[in-house]
Amino acid sequence: MKTYAFGVDVGGTTVKIGLLEEDGTLCESWEIPTRTQNGGVNILPDIAASIQKSIKKNKLTEKQICGIGMGVPGPVSADGTVNKCVNLGWDVFNVEKGMEVLTGFPTRVGNDANMAALGEMWMGGGKGFLDLVVITLGTGIGAGVIVDGRILSGFNGAAGEIGHMPMREDETEFCGCGKRGCLEQYASANGIARVAKKYLNEHDDASVLRDLPVEEITAKEVFDAAKAEDAVGLKLVEDFGEIIGIALAQVASVTNPQVFVIGGGVSKAGPIVTDVIRKYFVPHAFHACSGAEFTLATLGNDAGIYGSAWSVLNKDKV
Amino acid sequence: MKTYAFGVDVGGTTVKIGLLEEDGTLCESWEIPTRTQNGGVNILPDIAASIQKSIKKNKLTEKQICGIGMGVPGPVSADGTVNKCVNLGWDVFNVEKGMEVLTGFPTRVGNDANMAALGEMWMGGGKGFLDLVVITLGTGIGAGVIVDGRILSGFNGAAGEIGHMPMREDETEFCGCGKRGCLEQYASANGIARVAKKYLNEHDDASVLRDLPVEEITAKEVFDAAKAEDAVGLKLVEDFGEIIGIALAQVASVTNPQVFVIGGGVSKAGPIVTDVIRKYFVPHAFHACSGAEFTLATLGNDAGIYGSAWSVLNKDKV
Repeated sequence: MKTYAFGVDVGGTTVKIGLLEEDGTLCESWEIPTRTQNGGVNILPDIAASIQKSIKKNKLTEKQICGIGMGVPGPVSADGTVNKCVNLGWDVFNVEKGMEVLTGFPTRVGNDANMAALGEMWMGGGKGFLDLVVITLGTGIGAGVIVDGRILSGFNGAAGEIGHMPMREDETEFCGCGKRGCLEQYASANGIARVAKKYLNEHDDASVLRDLPVEEITAKEVFDAAKAEDAVGLKLVEDFGEIIGIALAQVASVTNPQVFVIGGGVSKAGPIVTDVIRKYFVPHAFHACSGAEFTLATLGNDAGIYGSAWSVLNKDKV
Repeated sequence: MKTYAFGVDVGGTTVKIGLLEEDGTLCESWEIPTRTQNGGVNILPDIAASIQKSIKKNKLTEKQICGIGMGVPGPVSADGTVNKCVNLGWDVFNVEKGMEVLTGFPTRVGNDANMAALGEMWMGGGKGFLDLVVITLGTGIGAGVIVDGRILSGFNGAAGEIGHMPMREDETEFCGCGKRGCLEQYASANGIARVAKKYLNEHDDASVLRDLPVEEITAKEVFDAAKAEDAVGLKLVEDFGEIIGIALAQVASVTNPQVFVIGGGVSKAGPIVTDVIRKYFVPHAFHACSGAEFTLATLGNDAGIYGSAWSVLNKDKV
């Protein structure tokens, strides 16, 4: 008799739900709207009802359900209490207990970025590794630091905030966090576009990027230009690789991971991303750490449901 | 009936041994020579005999001895196997099992720097904290990264190698590791002296440091000059605080510790060290991490015997 877990990724607009076998096979996944009105009071009952429907439809018995894992957009205490998920309308309450009362199934709740990192560890770009850092290069930069299969949370829940590592003393523009010179200002999707626009504005060398209206210059266009051997595109990609390669060499000196998994929108450019990061990482990393591998994340937006399911399937380990 | 543990810090010249009560009281400590001849074959029997003598002298029963903790100068696997401690003449063997056979007591073995970090956590500058980074500013820079009371080892045993974080792209001199621009080149005791000599050589402003023969310019002299309000001494201390403050802000973005404990020879200059590091740490750290405390290590050379004893007293936790 097979056993299953539900993985739930609660976002501000939709809730993604997946039914997974314990070997990581995703049987089905679907979305329901997130009803954030009235302090988000309907969110957990909606998820519970949707899960019950799936159990009925798939003719599963209660004994076959190992439990429910959930990722939520905000900090979560070890006991499953959320401390104000503003995007969901939630105040402070124990989501784990709430879900267990509603469904009768054991529940594990964690931060959504951390759940996504565990998903990449289980079935994605970090499969087979237990010491890894999963980095999401999107609008900003997020990271999940995993040591021996466990997520590091940090004393204030701020472990893995590598987007805000101070990298440049000479930066004049401010990061969203209020500081200047954060990694995110150069190596996130927004950061890459910002640096590109600034370069094009301050120089007049030829580039295919100049054919685009300024608002259409994105990280994707920069990597496409580099792939087409455009000199400016190549230079911008090298600069990106250098700053994040140095930052990850610094990270490696702290936790010495076996692999860095690179995800988020920027990673869609493919192996050019991991290749250029590795190029600058290796000479800057301490020799005992410099053999770390670089892989691309593979689960995309499903990483959260995989990781959430993993967290409840492995609840005795973590 | 009181229970006790032995803490053993095995160095290349002497072995420090301490008898501790389980509340952290150090009852007695002593040293024996490290006999490294013949592949270090006598080291464990010498320690075992010395421990038996202490048990007899103090009229302890076997039941009162919780076990033996040992720190050794090299990487140690989770099962207690050392992989060539060159300073001791040891090849590859399981020190934990060896000691248990010799004494009949449960034994825990770990890297000496990590044991010292656990000692500072238990009874030193990190007492009362479970999420901390213990940094030793000596000839080089070492660090023990502790998360939830556990030492991070890293995939290759190189976690906490923060002395080799890449900090400067424009450095022309080489670090002992073969790279250029490592934190250690600026913020270790040797690094501070190196920077001071270079500054004095390249400038001609007045300083009490110029009254010293160049070989007597040490980190201590630099901090003494700053305490005497010497302009060059003050500038050098600020430069030290800036580079290590930035490095620790980067570390904080990875593991988000509650406290940084600063030890090693440099820390003997006192609160001026933690004050100037904090001054530069706070504005460079991500806001959620910037409240980390800075304390001075308090156990000096005894940290290893405290931490080793702790590791066996808490062997079920770690």
